[in-house]
Amino acid sequence: MKNLEFLTDLYQLTMMQGYLQHGYEEKDAVFDLYFRNIPNGGGYAIAAGLEQVIEYIETLHFTDEDIDYLSGLNLFNTEFLVALKNFHFSGDIDAVPEGTPVFPYEPLVRVKARIFEAQLVETTLLNLVNFETLIATKAFRVVTAAGGGSVAEFGLRRAQGPDAGVLGARAAIIGGCQSTSNVLAGQKFGVPVSGTQAHSWVQCFPSELESFRAYAKSFPDQCLLLVDTYNVLKSGVPNAIKVGLELEAAGHHFLGIRIDSGDLTYLSREARLMLDEAGLYDAKIVGSNDLDEHTIWAIRAQGAPIDSWGVGTHLITSKDTPALGGVYKLCAEGQNGVFEPRLKVSENTTKITNPGIKKIVRFYDRGGKAMADLIALEDEYFKEPLTIFDPLQTWKKKTLTNFTTKEILKPIFRSGKCVYNLPSIQEIQAYTQSEMATIWDEVKRLTNPHRYIVDLSPKLYNLKQELLQQISDQVNEVEESCK
Amino acid sequence: MKNLEFLTDLYQLTMMQGYLQHGYEEKDAVFDLYFRNIPNGGGYAIAAGLEQVIEYIETLHFTDEDIDYLSGLNLFNTEFLVALKNFHFSGDIDAVPEGTPVFPYEPLVRVKARIFEAQLVETTLLNLVNFETLIATKAFRVVTAAGGGSVAEFGLRRAQGPDAGVLGARAAIIGGCQSTSNVLAGQKFGVPVSGTQAHSWVQCFPSELESFRAYAKSFPDQCLLLVDTYNVLKSGVPNAIKVGLELEAAGHHFLGIRIDSGDLTYLSREARLMLDEAGLYDAKIVGSNDLDEHTIWAIRAQGAPIDSWGVGTHLITSKDTPALGGVYKLCAEGQNGVFEPRLKVSENTTKITNPGIKKIVRFYDRGGKAMADLIALEDEYFKEPLTIFDPLQTWKKKTLTNFTTKEILKPIFRSGKCVYNLPSIQEIQAYTQSEMATIWDEVKRLTNPHRYIVDLSPKLYNLKQELLQQISDQVNEVEESCK
Repeated sequence: MKNLEFLTDLYQLTMMQGYLQHGYEEKDAVFDLYFRNIPNGGGYAIAAGLEQVIEYIETLHFTDEDIDYLSGLNLFNTEFLVALKNFHFSGDIDAVPEGTPVFPYEPLVRVKARIFEAQLVETTLLNLVNFETLIATKAFRVVTAAGGGSVAEFGLRRAQGPDAGVLGARAAIIGGCQSTSNVLAGQKFGVPVSGTQAHSWVQCFPSELESFRAYAKSFPDQCLLLVDTYNVLKSGVPNAIKVGLELEAAGHHFLGIRIDSGDLTYLSREARLMLDEAGLYDAKIVGSNDLDEHTIWAIRAQGAPIDSWGVGTHLITSKDTPALGGVYKLCAEGQNGVFEPRLKVSENTTKITNPGIKKIVRFYDRGGKAMADLIALEDEYFKEPLTIFDPLQTWKKKTLTNFTTKEILKPIFRSGKCVYNLPSIQEIQAYTQSEMATIWDEVKRLTNPHRYIVDLSPKLYNLKQELLQQISDQVNEVEESCK
Repeated sequence: MKNLEFLTDLYQLTMMQGYLQHGYEEKDAVFDLYFRNIPNGGGYAIAAGLEQVIEYIETLHFTDEDIDYLSGLNLFNTEFLVALKNFHFSGDIDAVPEGTPVFPYEPLVRVKARIFEAQLVETTLLNLVNFETLIATKAFRVVTAAGGGSVAEFGLRRAQGPDAGVLGARAAIIGGCQSTSNVLAGQKFGVPVSGTQAHSWVQCFPSELESFRAYAKSFPDQCLLLVDTYNVLKSGVPNAIKVGLELEAAGHHFLGIRIDSGDLTYLSREARLMLDEAGLYDAKIVGSNDLDEHTIWAIRAQGAPIDSWGVGTHLITSKDTPALGGVYKLCAEGQNGVFEPRLKVSENTTKITNPGIKKIVRFYDRGGKAMADLIALEDEYFKEPLTIFDPLQTWKKKTLTNFTTKEILKPIFRSGKCVYNLPSIQEIQAYTQSEMATIWDEVKRLTNPHRYIVDLSPKLYNLKQELLQQISDQVNEVEESCK
């Protein structure tokens, strides 16, 4: 997470030079970072990555080496390179705190800054927020499927590069995983690390029994034995029971076994019977082997006696939806504090942006459950009874009464200074749990969830319609002038 | 790519302490890194990531801060922590050069070292080789689909974290992409960077035409205009034509347009007609918008006049198969240079490992096309005629004559010293092209490719059968003793 100033697309730099040449460098812009589709076929996403965004913004600068590199591309002029050498971020950023449930079209990050600055940070902000939000969301799904059983993240070897392993482990903890196998994530973020032995340990000793005894000797109080190197029920579990009984006889607590291949329902049931028969009632069974939320859910539904889970590839890559698809769109521009709303049209109506400087208001019922969100303009306030409507199917209306509200976006930077107190990773994990408790189970269902209501305020809706009409008129003028 | 010593799973460290306690730290081990399934439903993978592996191994050491962190976990003893403080890699590594086509079960990396050392590096080696191999493979597929059209990688904003963006861009270049939008990858690896403007540039000016004119003024010889901010055919293309003609009249070469939404076949055909009608025959059309190899293939099959392609999310995440699934398995262990083969059994026959210290021999026909690979023991040599057979369906035989051979694994480290000359990224890209030219088109087909033959040598096959029988006998002994 150092020297990320070049973690950007070249076109950000060419546009910046263009802004400078056309006297636009002092123009202010407001950009929204949001996603259009919820990953994994689910009903929510969980915001994450803000801590890395803050670190990036705070350390953002260009070195002489950077300027030399750009100079060698023969694209940039001296005026621009000097401006870049003096660059620091001096704008405002608002963002949704990590661990907050979020929904399509809601700005997770809002950047208000000179367009020269706001343009540069687009790519890095998207990269960081897209990935961590994706993995925190997936992790919450996996942890939900595991019910009370704890989940250990151990996907580092399948992660998409070193940062994906480390930031993915962080996001997995935010989403509710109990620990990670990733030592670097442990060191960097202070999260619990866990792990015992691999098949190579077992293979390396003359026999499975000797390998188990050796492990028990080295780690008598953290002894969880991997039982599937040769044959789970004929060799692994019998040998583990021998060593477990020896440990218990010596006054230690035998943790249990891990099954990493074969049918986990069948093998865990048989293993449980064998452990119980030997009197090892407290020995736990850990299941792993290419698990995702759906397999864990199905195995638990079959009553498999698995106490905790190790999840790798599917979690660390969000395998079924490996990208969140967040975008960063200009919604207003101005100068000296006066802003004009801006809109981007598209052939695809879902790609049309929401104009203006916006906020997100979440409405809660008396029981503290979230009923709906409104994307509204910054200066709007709402009183009950409030009738809201779907922005695409405007006949779909709902009247809210008896509500309390919360604004979801919080100030993070003001004039380039961080004004936000970073919570610890444990605090974020707890915040995720309390925030997700406000979301109805229907929305949290793994498949075919109820769609949470996110509407536009009437004022924002009307502004959007007006701008669409204006642009349509302009397009017709261009077409006419070409005839 | 600094301080990756902790980019490992905790269990590597607990096992290392165990090896030390049981006097196994001087024992030597041989591990194979290989994958079992080809990604993206394809017929090949392209090895990548070796340069990062070398950098990791060469700089691998533990700092005082690292030792303090581990000490605080209350898992490790002083003897182990001292051994870690003195750690450096002193073993041998062989690997397949980057850009080589590889197939399931073939060791891409082979590590022969003290088990204490070989165990530690497992996770990082897998992380690096899995990801870059995945993306180089995907990139070759995309570039294949694009035919002669060039492909620019621009997925950084959707990459799984910063390293995924940078290493993914590197792998994309290895696989044949012409450029990347990623400035950090450009700076770090010397690859060409490219990019022009985004929708925000167009939105930021009072009109689309003014935004195009401003861009043309700033970059008269790199002017590629994004035409879909308001309406491609009614506004974007007519405005681009105006500016293109102005540029040409002023003696510059107008590069062309980029279409980033809507139906690319329809829009590119209409845009081509309009550009040609205006006399802008040399103006190029770049297509982008959630493209993968299948969409590019289909759009080209419809005769769309698109000259080059920008590919983001699908390429940088290998969206249809976001993990390679490589594993790192013990295949031999020994002491003082004498090794014994080792095997891991599994309920799933495809998960049984190949024992012994192995090499890969590739057989070429007279025309220089690759016919088959044999995974063989290190001391084997082959003369024609040679009859090979499928290791799972042993009745499937093939006799090879008139062949030349090449051993695919090359020495990379000897006694901890790097003995390999790193090629430049341009050399690796060229090597990929020449290596892939040896592979039949049938194997390179995007869907339902012909399966390339990878068999075991008879000697290796027999060794594997013997060990399977021995383990089966041992398992039965354990079972008997438990009755």
